[in-house]
Amino acid sequence: MNVADLIIRKRDGGALTAAEIQHVITGFTAGSIPDYQMASLLMAIFFRGLDDDELAVWTDAMLHSGDVLDFSDVAAPKVDKHSTGGVGDKVSIPLAPMVAACGVAVPMMSGRGLGHTGGTVDKLESIPGFTAVLDPERFGEILRRTGLVLAGQSETLVPADRRIYALRDTTGTVASSPLIASSIISKKLAEGLDALVLDVKVGGGAFMPDEARARDLAGKMVAIGTANGTRTAAVLTAMDQPLGREVGNANEIAESITVLRGGGPADLLEVVYRLGREMLLLGGITDDTRDAQERLERAVASGAAAEKFQEVVAAQGGDPAVVSDPGLLPSPDFTTDIPATRDGYVTGLDALAIGRAAVRLGAGREHKEDDIDAAVGITLLAKVGDVVEAGDPLARVGWNDEDRLAEARPLLDAAWEIGDDPPEDAPIVLGEVR
Amino acid sequence: MNVADLIIRKRDGGALTAAEIQHVITGFTAGSIPDYQMASLLMAIFFRGLDDDELAVWTDAMLHSGDVLDFSDVAAPKVDKHSTGGVGDKVSIPLAPMVAACGVAVPMMSGRGLGHTGGTVDKLESIPGFTAVLDPERFGEILRRTGLVLAGQSETLVPADRRIYALRDTTGTVASSPLIASSIISKKLAEGLDALVLDVKVGGGAFMPDEARARDLAGKMVAIGTANGTRTAAVLTAMDQPLGREVGNANEIAESITVLRGGGPADLLEVVYRLGREMLLLGGITDDTRDAQERLERAVASGAAAEKFQEVVAAQGGDPAVVSDPGLLPSPDFTTDIPATRDGYVTGLDALAIGRAAVRLGAGREHKEDDIDAAVGITLLAKVGDVVEAGDPLARVGWNDEDRLAEARPLLDAAWEIGDDPPEDAPIVLGEVR
Repeated sequence: MNVADLIIRKRDGGALTAAEIQHVITGFTAGSIPDYQMASLLMAIFFRGLDDDELAVWTDAMLHSGDVLDFSDVAAPKVDKHSTGGVGDKVSIPLAPMVAACGVAVPMMSGRGLGHTGGTVDKLESIPGFTAVLDPERFGEILRRTGLVLAGQSETLVPADRRIYALRDTTGTVASSPLIASSIISKKLAEGLDALVLDVKVGGGAFMPDEARARDLAGKMVAIGTANGTRTAAVLTAMDQPLGREVGNANEIAESITVLRGGGPADLLEVVYRLGREMLLLGGITDDTRDAQERLERAVASGAAAEKFQEVVAAQGGDPAVVSDPGLLPSPDFTTDIPATRDGYVTGLDALAIGRAAVRLGAGREHKEDDIDAAVGITLLAKVGDVVEAGDPLARVGWNDEDRLAEARPLLDAAWEIGDDPPEDAPIVLGEVR
Repeated sequence: MNVADLIIRKRDGGALTAAEIQHVITGFTAGSIPDYQMASLLMAIFFRGLDDDELAVWTDAMLHSGDVLDFSDVAAPKVDKHSTGGVGDKVSIPLAPMVAACGVAVPMMSGRGLGHTGGTVDKLESIPGFTAVLDPERFGEILRRTGLVLAGQSETLVPADRRIYALRDTTGTVASSPLIASSIISKKLAEGLDALVLDVKVGGGAFMPDEARARDLAGKMVAIGTANGTRTAAVLTAMDQPLGREVGNANEIAESITVLRGGGPADLLEVVYRLGREMLLLGGITDDTRDAQERLERAVASGAAAEKFQEVVAAQGGDPAVVSDPGLLPSPDFTTDIPATRDGYVTGLDALAIGRAAVRLGAGREHKEDDIDAAVGITLLAKVGDVVEAGDPLARVGWNDEDRLAEARPLLDAAWEIGDDPPEDAPIVLGEVR
């Protein structure tokens, strides 16, 4: 099989056969197909796409490039949730214990933050002692014991994705729907799931600013998951302003604990409960949406959800006391308020600017090898639709390094739009694909 | 300068600045920009092209990636000709001595054959003793002494082209007009020319089967050459059937000698004289087309052109006696005729099939490292427009290896189309770009 011929066929808009795709993924992962041929093929795919059949095979070949976990001995339905990433998106942290408390097993592997969005693993590691680095045996052991495990990505799962992603990152081929879809779905299916719920973010703070492209990506992912025999659904949610009130790491854990205890801001709750209902429905816990909602509410009201979180934190080496006392989480040495410059309604709050400001404060990474500062972050005191007066604090910034604050400050000062008229109500949930 | 950002800009249809292009070509040639980033950029260029400014800078950066020859001490105008490659295209071999005999200095560097078209260097090396491998001093010395030198490509000229071409060959990015144009023109301009004439082949046996794309390529090359200060013109010529009667190596030298002695088939003569006139005009030998034609005819009739060829063959170590006695060239051990299967007019003769058949016989290379057999080849006895009777020989095949003949045979048997009605006259010269 001549790889140059396959590249030319894709370049000219043709399709690759299953055997050809297998050959490419296997050969590239093994090192027999060089980076430069894969780079050229990825750019051709950027322009020409992959059809449904090609994408299913491409994803399946990636999935089988390494270990695939098997939890067939776990009786509970294995269901996970994945978000395409947004600012203030801590949804997984309250959601996973809530649905686990309802009888779903959640073998969750998450990424670290890179760019303007935070990573679930970074947030969890702000809990003193908590580790997200688990070998496959320990991962399975915790899942079997607590019905829930919150880990980072394993080195032995989907090695093809790590190699392809590193190449895409340096060759201008990240922003390709089929490549994004295959990357996400191959990693999730390697967790040995029965069902998968996807949160596809749309808006200025998301990787897909426009709804049509987000819907296309959601459709692709649902199609691949379903073709693989995994019940899959996607919810499109808004990411124009950050989700919830907290952006950072420790402060996002604190907000997650608030949700587990029955509180929390309305937008965050709407996304958490919507995805939670989908997970219970797809997991077969119930076939009634209202019943799913009630089960989630009971898990919170009874304390079962918070207890489940405490249990998994302890199992992964973290201090379980943080769940009853979030004051034990790291906190910044200094805080500074961002004042409103005029009276009016908040008509816009730029999620991308807030995400970038958080990175500059030290809450995220500019480069893969950067350390993060778990204590720093931004508390949003005024969000879209709120009424403010000049001088009111729009946000409280927690910081540890004056230079970093100075770098973040211009982004923060420009992040709010304040106008005379109230903005139109904008929905959080924009649609679904199943 | 972040190369991934440049790739993304080109991918999205933007233009690169001169400094960015310089950085890419220099960095790639030096090895600081990896193959995989260049491969991805080349594929983005395949889809998005390069605008005139980008292409001029890209070519100039390639040109200056290595040595550029300087023949400013040679008083005669330095003019070369380049063909995009066709089957039976031995034009350079009679043309260079003819124009050199008229006072043009020709510092010609040519390629070896790869794929279905032959290479001028391979053909010349069928002359016993002849070498096309010359170091830059020897190259200049022969040019200064004889006004003509016929060499292979030098390792020290345009190293960027060698590296980029090797990458394009394996990554599906050969068939890109700006990349073809920059490759050709950078190599030719490195010869230190005053003027350049391009023979852009169009048709089934050429790399550009369709005239619009060939004209676009010609326009790009003329624009770059002119922007560089080198007088440049292009002639588009037909390559549906092979040029002349001979396809191979030694037999193409013999046909070239026939032209130098005043004979030769009409189609070959038309192309040789047309390009020769262009070289004399662009070189400033005369400004009158009719005068240019007469000078070329006199150079042949007087024996000066054949003598010039004899002189350069001797200077490059070859046996000059072949020019008066082509029987000294290698010849095949066996010949086989391909018979016509019916009466009629030859309405088509597939240049690509003949070129491929010649490669299978051993006259060309399937792989870079293959040796060629200079003695084997195909003599076309019936070309388009000829009347044949069933059983008449359409071609005489010279061969040395029965297995190779058997591989070539099906291509040869299917190469001729014979019909009841005479074909329409098709022109050889299709147009020009200047």
